[in-house]
Amino acid sequence: MTIEDKLKKKKQAVDRELERLIKKDETPLSEAMWYAVFSGGKRYRPLLALCSGESFGVGQEMMMPFACATELIHNYSLIHDDLPCMDNDEMRRGQPTCHRAFGEDVALLAGDALLTLAFEIMARAPLERELGPRRERAVQEVGFRAGIQGMIGGQHLDITLSPDALSEAQLEELILKKTGALIIASVKIGAILGDASSGQLELVTAFGRNVGLAFQTRDDIIDSTEDQETSSPARPNSVSLFGYPEAKRRLERFVGEAIQALDDMSIESDTLRYLACGLLDVTKD
Amino acid sequence: MTIEDKLKKKKQAVDRELERLIKKDETPLSEAMWYAVFSGGKRYRPLLALCSGESFGVGQEMMMPFACATELIHNYSLIHDDLPCMDNDEMRRGQPTCHRAFGEDVALLAGDALLTLAFEIMARAPLERELGPRRERAVQEVGFRAGIQGMIGGQHLDITLSPDALSEAQLEELILKKTGALIIASVKIGAILGDASSGQLELVTAFGRNVGLAFQTRDDIIDSTEDQETSSPARPNSVSLFGYPEAKRRLERFVGEAIQALDDMSIESDTLRYLACGLLDVTKD
Repeated sequence: MTIEDKLKKKKQAVDRELERLIKKDETPLSEAMWYAVFSGGKRYRPLLALCSGESFGVGQEMMMPFACATELIHNYSLIHDDLPCMDNDEMRRGQPTCHRAFGEDVALLAGDALLTLAFEIMARAPLERELGPRRERAVQEVGFRAGIQGMIGGQHLDITLSPDALSEAQLEELILKKTGALIIASVKIGAILGDASSGQLELVTAFGRNVGLAFQTRDDIIDSTEDQETSSPARPNSVSLFGYPEAKRRLERFVGEAIQALDDMSIESDTLRYLACGLLDVTKD
Repeated sequence: MTIEDKLKKKKQAVDRELERLIKKDETPLSEAMWYAVFSGGKRYRPLLALCSGESFGVGQEMMMPFACATELIHNYSLIHDDLPCMDNDEMRRGQPTCHRAFGEDVALLAGDALLTLAFEIMARAPLERELGPRRERAVQEVGFRAGIQGMIGGQHLDITLSPDALSEAQLEELILKKTGALIIASVKIGAILGDASSGQLELVTAFGRNVGLAFQTRDDIIDSTEDQETSSPARPNSVSLFGYPEAKRRLERFVGEAIQALDDMSIESDTLRYLACGLLDVTKD
């Protein structure tokens, strides 16, 4: 099986599990959750989690609830970030945003519900009893990265930092929190559940940091070519700060450093490598 | 020590732990979290959790992170419910609501952060290794009760049900989800961590249900006397549905049934009894 086929199969498994988790019970609330989660996401974070788990000997079934938790958290953050009081976005993935389709009140609750569900399914994940401590460390990791020191802190920076007077260090902190934190958590939970050594955990974290930086830099590059047509409000981003050519060089550097971290780990990691290298393609998904 | 003194000491311990958890790092985000949590809450839910734990032999230190989690979740829900797209409340506990003090965007993130922190601290709670499975069951309980089948589902009912055409069954479902769910979770996590029997768990759940129903009925009674002065928008509530005298009879019945459940448990539970009986006092807190 090619790597692409392997990833496609994993993505299908993630989608099946997400469908099972989000019951479509015909209330607007569950429909809004469904709408947000099944609107064409690439499942990049759960794929990272599953592939990282595989590299550290964690089976797909055991990894799945944790992988899905990252996707639920990702989607809750998109719903809340799109709200009028935040970024006030009208479209997402070619469709009206959740609050435009279901109303702000229902969208707010749908986000809250996805976040809550993420932690509930990690607590329900069927693990051998002796793996309990690893579950706790994995949940701690997700909670920390999703919280005020991670994603939420990053979104707060995003709404408070002025895009006109941004230093490189500020932009990196913003990206590492807003986008990087959940990506770091996604790869780390695989390593944690697989009982990686502390040296490996450090390398996995370095891999996640660089993938996170690359992911957002690539997004900024793609957005910069789109913005000529639409005209989103100015947000702090790599292209406006460094210019297009330098942003591309930075993207290549981040991917290179991610690959270096994988090499240093000396584990089988062809799928993780593929996911990182895929970020070099800056044509639109 | 009198029961009142015991509860006062427990409340002080809860406040100290909450102060430790919510670092006031001078960013608007952590200030908003602090503002919401330290605005004069009675800590009713963490007190229920600590007292329930005590009844089932769980020490205060072990119980504390779970008790605080219930208070963080309670306060996140208040922030989000107060937002303009939801209840659009301007005042809470005699102060401007969180979004009026910090802006809607920061209030939204502060709520998200409190919810995330609640689950993070439960995963971090220092427990003996063999108690891991009880932690998982406690977190499952909190996640379930906070989620779409519990609090979030209740808030959704609250914004969709018409107060004019409400049946008794609908009102009870609304109260049990919106207010009851987290109260049930608060008393159940004490029993779960104390390894209560399934019979005891059923009785604790019955106690929590009735305390939840009594708590909201009492709130409705207090609100009904206040509404003559202010003029909140009509929400589904016990007084408008049953009238004041019948609402008071219902309150007494719920407290009576809560006490009956405690009696049937045959455990030392003087503090839980006191917390339930305190709901009979319908003068304002």
